Amino acid sequence: MARAWHLEKRPSGLPVASDFALRDIDMPALADGEIRVRNLWLSVDPYMRGRMNDAKSYADPFALGEPMTGGAVGEVVESNAEGFAPGDHVLHMHGWRDEAVLPARGVQKLPPIDVPPQAFLGQFGMPGMTAYFGLLRVAEAKPGDTVFVSAAAGAVGSTVVQIAKARGMTVIGSAGGTRKCDWVRSLGADRVIDYKGEASVLRQLHAAAPEGIDVYFDNVGGEHLDAAFATARQGARFAICGMIDIYNSGAATELRYIARTIAARIRIQGFLVSDWMGEAGDFYRDMAAMLADGKLQREETVIEGIENMPQAFLGLFEGSNMGKMLVRV
Amino acid sequence: MARAWHLEKRPSGLPVASDFALRDIDMPALADGEIRVRNLWLSVDPYMRGRMNDAKSYADPFALGEPMTGGAVGEVVESNAEGFAPGDHVLHMHGWRDEAVLPARGVQKLPPIDVPPQAFLGQFGMPGMTAYFGLLRVAEAKPGDTVFVSAAAGAVGSTVVQIAKARGMTVIGSAGGTRKCDWVRSLGADRVIDYKGEASVLRQLHAAAPEGIDVYFDNVGGEHLDAAFATARQGARFAICGMIDIYNSGAATELRYIARTIAARIRIQGFLVSDWMGEAGDFYRDMAAMLADGKLQREETVIEGIENMPQAFLGLFEGSNMGKMLVRV
Repeated sequence: MARAWHLEKRPSGLPVASDFALRDIDMPALADGEIRVRNLWLSVDPYMRGRMNDAKSYADPFALGEPMTGGAVGEVVESNAEGFAPGDHVLHMHGWRDEAVLPARGVQKLPPIDVPPQAFLGQFGMPGMTAYFGLLRVAEAKPGDTVFVSAAAGAVGSTVVQIAKARGMTVIGSAGGTRKCDWVRSLGADRVIDYKGEASVLRQLHAAAPEGIDVYFDNVGGEHLDAAFATARQGARFAICGMIDIYNSGAATELRYIARTIAARIRIQGFLVSDWMGEAGDFYRDMAAMLADGKLQREETVIEGIENMPQAFLGLFEGSNMGKMLVRV
Repeated sequence: MARAWHLEKRPSGLPVASDFALRDIDMPALADGEIRVRNLWLSVDPYMRGRMNDAKSYADPFALGEPMTGGAVGEVVESNAEGFAPGDHVLHMHGWRDEAVLPARGVQKLPPIDVPPQAFLGQFGMPGMTAYFGLLRVAEAKPGDTVFVSAAAGAVGSTVVQIAKARGMTVIGSAGGTRKCDWVRSLGADRVIDYKGEASVLRQLHAAAPEGIDVYFDNVGGEHLDAAFATARQGARFAICGMIDIYNSGAATELRYIARTIAARIRIQGFLVSDWMGEAGDFYRDMAAMLADGKLQREETVIEGIENMPQAFLGLFEGSNMGKMLVRV
């Protein structure tokens, strides 16, 4: 019998285990154009927190009492759709469950790049594309720029660091704790800020970038964003990708330096990776080249068993992942 | 004997009278290329508050114990410079004084537009250009857009309202008090928000723009900016011109809705009018056409006497001006 995680209650603040329930689901017979997929890897991502609220946003809210959805990689076990055969490895959005019957038109075969299949949920998937398009297109980062990226040990941030280094930028990454900071440094970051350290993020950023920053890639919001305002050089560009600091609390963000937007002519641009899907070819090409050149490292934090998926999700907000957080079914 | 306002102390918070002193200044004989100007009109502008701090920003700080500077319109009374003759009316930056000796190369003759000379310190000068370039170039406002502008009864805001209406936009202006709100409505604003009213700016903006806003022209920051985040439609553009709310206090800005930057793909761009001087010809052409079509109203709040200039300046922060705040020497 297949099982899926259902949203039982809308969380208030940080979600708790009882907000979710793992329940049996029916697996209908295949209609025309459908396939059945046995999921191997399930993705948990910070943006899913927003979908647990009953508020219209870029992704529809999860329905109460219904299975949740999200990125997944699996193997086709039955096909009633042209072009898909049992044994194919595919990427799709019917995650949070161990098995799915779904229309083949929402399903993507894994691109021919020599990485393990779960990488297409991370560095070669949505988080990697977020890093690539956010840095190069949204922030228009150029060789010689000084780039500050928060959550630099995460799936998105760690890819930002490596793309930026490969393109001749100076990179300052922020992460929490010595182990993560060491890893970010090993990825090539020129300087690393430990946001759990004694000195404030602002003080550390001033020290790390005495001449200021040209680009800020924001995954966090809050104190990191304010430090970016304080240190922005003329014409700085901020790509606003996430604000994990406030996803649960919904607290107000206090900014002491936002007025520097005027004098420094800062451009701040929010974006969603889905806006850039039409240019995914550029992403795969450039990332495959970096991989071939040995310029790409990848880390995964793997939680075993679908039973533990809520804990994997909650771990994102505790910073318990290094690289991409994944659940192996 | 000529007199000039000197900065005696750097204000902490809202400036007080004793931060300034009106003192005699020497009027040297004219060197080659210099002119002597008797000032008729002096400008006070919110940005001058920043120059009273000892902090590097887009304009250099005023020097302690030295005459302050700023926009002024005057009449040439003596000339040692080609192209300038006694009787010429000119615009220059040696304000805060009744007479000035200055190099002619920093001086502009008044453009041939049929408005009183002091208009070149307001709607046909720096504040007008700020409105024009901020709305049309920075925010890229287009016909059909819904535009929200704060401080809509000020020199900049009142011009934003009228340019936006002339270009087929829907305009929501915010101002303080019934008299100002009535005036903003008379300029053509479709809806007006009284920020001194009982309902919050956010509640009023939701009611005024139930479908949301496409453009926010920010002169104020703070609560107005947060309301703009809350109501921004997909692809909204914010032109950040000023944040008068915090020029004196330096307080942190509390934003509850800034995370909407991501989902709504908001673009926020700080700017200075000086960046657009190369395109001033477009401004004069379009504004002269609006004037000829009877589509431009102008208001001035005139304080008489150079002795009262600090009070005029402080009045900007009390919202005591409708339209451009000016001092008549």
